[in-house]
Amino acid sequence: MEHFNIAVIAGDGVGPEVIEEGKKVFSGISRIDGNFSVSFTDFPWGCEYYLKTGEMMPADGMDLLRGFDAVYLGAVGYPGVPDHISLGGLLLRIRRGFDEYINLRPIRLLKGAPCPLADVRPEDVNMIVVRENSEGEYANVGARLYSDTEREVAFQTAVFSRHGCERVIRYAFELARHEKRSLTSISKGNALRYSMVFWDEVFAEIGQEYPDVETHSLLVDAASMFFVKDPKRFEIVVTSNLFGDILTDLGAAIAGGMGLAAGANLNPERKYPSMFEPIHGSAPDIAGKGIANPLASIWSVSQMLEFLGEREWSQRLLSAIEILLMERRILTADLGGSAKTADIGAAVLEILGR
Amino acid sequence: MEHFNIAVIAGDGVGPEVIEEGKKVFSGISRIDGNFSVSFTDFPWGCEYYLKTGEMMPADGMDLLRGFDAVYLGAVGYPGVPDHISLGGLLLRIRRGFDEYINLRPIRLLKGAPCPLADVRPEDVNMIVVRENSEGEYANVGARLYSDTEREVAFQTAVFSRHGCERVIRYAFELARHEKRSLTSISKGNALRYSMVFWDEVFAEIGQEYPDVETHSLLVDAASMFFVKDPKRFEIVVTSNLFGDILTDLGAAIAGGMGLAAGANLNPERKYPSMFEPIHGSAPDIAGKGIANPLASIWSVSQMLEFLGEREWSQRLLSAIEILLMERRILTADLGGSAKTADIGAAVLEILGR
Ligand SMILES: CC(C)[C@H](C(=O)O)[C@@H](O)C(=O)O
Ligand SMILES: CC(C)[C@H](C(=O)O)[C@@H](O)C(=O)O
Repeated sequence: MEHFNIAVIAGDGVGPEVIEEGKKVFSGISRIDGNFSVSFTDFPWGCEYYLKTGEMMPADGMDLLRGFDAVYLGAVGYPGVPDHISLGGLLLRIRRGFDEYINLRPIRLLKGAPCPLADVRPEDVNMIVVRENSEGEYANVGARLYSDTEREVAFQTAVFSRHGCERVIRYAFELARHEKRSLTSISKGNALRYSMVFWDEVFAEIGQEYPDVETHSLLVDAASMFFVKDPKRFEIVVTSNLFGDILTDLGAAIAGGMGLAAGANLNPERKYPSMFEPIHGSAPDIAGKGIANPLASIWSVSQMLEFLGEREWSQRLLSAIEILLMERRILTADLGGSAKTADIGAAVLEILGR
Repeated sequence: MEHFNIAVIAGDGVGPEVIEEGKKVFSGISRIDGNFSVSFTDFPWGCEYYLKTGEMMPADGMDLLRGFDAVYLGAVGYPGVPDHISLGGLLLRIRRGFDEYINLRPIRLLKGAPCPLADVRPEDVNMIVVRENSEGEYANVGARLYSDTEREVAFQTAVFSRHGCERVIRYAFELARHEKRSLTSISKGNALRYSMVFWDEVFAEIGQEYPDVETHSLLVDAASMFFVKDPKRFEIVVTSNLFGDILTDLGAAIAGGMGLAAGANLNPERKYPSMFEPIHGSAPDIAGKGIANPLASIWSVSQMLEFLGEREWSQRLLSAIEILLMERRILTADLGGSAKTADIGAAVLEILGR
């Protein structure tokens, strides 16, 4: 019998609440299936840990995670701890440390999910964004000179390596070929002539190896306009770290809201564990009230199941979320319902068991 | 009698067509008013010029423009000339060379303008974006190493100086105070710890001088979500060069489309001429057909009039555009009409003359 060992970092704010539901669903599925089992090991890292120890995770934290089949992350961030410390010390550290260079974010409007766009049907919003997740604008290279003087200046350097660009672009081409869908590269060569002109060149080069894949290139400003005006033109999208960050939040807005947005941080070679997370933040304003929407967290379980080879369950779980949305019986307040966070996992399992 | 000397760079693609209508409107207004006159001097620069001469503008181009009261720009860019050459050699060169460090972009949904958002009324979309326009991500600092080898790497460095941040943030605070509206700073301190953490600090510092102005700070990813989900929370917005680029295209999408989006590139000290432009591109696919929508170009005349001290005409012109949209008689195809580009200027003047 197959067994999956999952490391859980529930993190801050609503993190523990939404993760709890995801765990319930994952365990429940393993019971229904009967052919695989799952165990969760909790790591109490995050901002509270930081306030006690001065570190977001212990010095040997990465070693402790290394042996797991996947990392399941809730949310990171807390009023009082500067974001660049909390995120840099945990979320971004794991993404980089485990070379999770692919950030895979489905932007898909499920039936029954709310959409702020007029005249858009669920089938019009159905793309997968492949975001570069290890370098680029997030390379964390920079300096600040002449602090607190009039001449003060801050530099932030984006680093685009050939290796880094090639691997994410190639991944996106493989995905587009496999899914028989078009691929759109989003960049900004007209203003960022070092980084983005290079990105565009690599995209064109790799494209030569995939004559069967229809390709498009868009500027990030135009792309953000089309996300709103004509989302159906996007199928598979590949873009840089920062642009992927912006566009996937915009994508979440048009695909049901942050309560429904999941993301996978993949190390495709499986040399290190991959990490799965709802992409919303820790939402301190509603933390502890039991009202956070755990569907993004549950959707990320679907992504985890897919990565672990349980493709059918991955899809069944996504369908169950869609049914839950369409039935409108058991939904959290952000979706117009009155259910509690803790009701959602069971409701999803009930649908799966029908 | 006051006289305005305007330098015109109609540029590429639809540029000349839309600029023609703006000139008509400006001249027409001066005739109706009777107390000021205007003259236009055309400079035939752009991509055709580049193909003939190897330069987007002559070596003494900036000197030729220096004496004018304003520069009126159409569009720049042409298939066959790489964007980073055409833009860098003209649009961005003027922005930088004339220290037009404020890019002022109204995001305002006029009555009668189309909006892709459900449940949004015109009064919900009414903000002004103050975009840093001289440095930041567009500083044009970078390098490429080990070209065409596996180790190739591109660096692109964003430069945020205290002087550069302070002046744009201060401008935005002054505007917010003057208009009695809130000010939202949009940045990304949680991932870009040099540039954006610095920006956030400067924003907080300058804010101390404006206790009467209500302030907010948002991450750029969250902001792009809220542009779509809750645009009315934005009144005055201040942000970096790149984020302003992305957010104002997104803003254009929710405020009637690119056919209605104007931008002013201001040197507030008036040491150099300021530049006014529709923010759309050269649209080569429809160039020469006489069907481009010139309303963005005409809106930028309204911005020009305001900057030249003709505030009342600036507002009357904007109202005339709104009436044109509401009447729906004379509109270009992108707005569902069948009028030609060349019909629009006269239609606007007819309304102004009523
Ligand atoms: C929390 C933050 C650092 C992170 C990012 O910018 O990558 C988040 O916005 C995301 O999209 O996963
Ligand atoms: C054409 C391009 C360089 C420019 C920019 O990015 O600033 C444009 O998109 C704009 O917004 O004015």
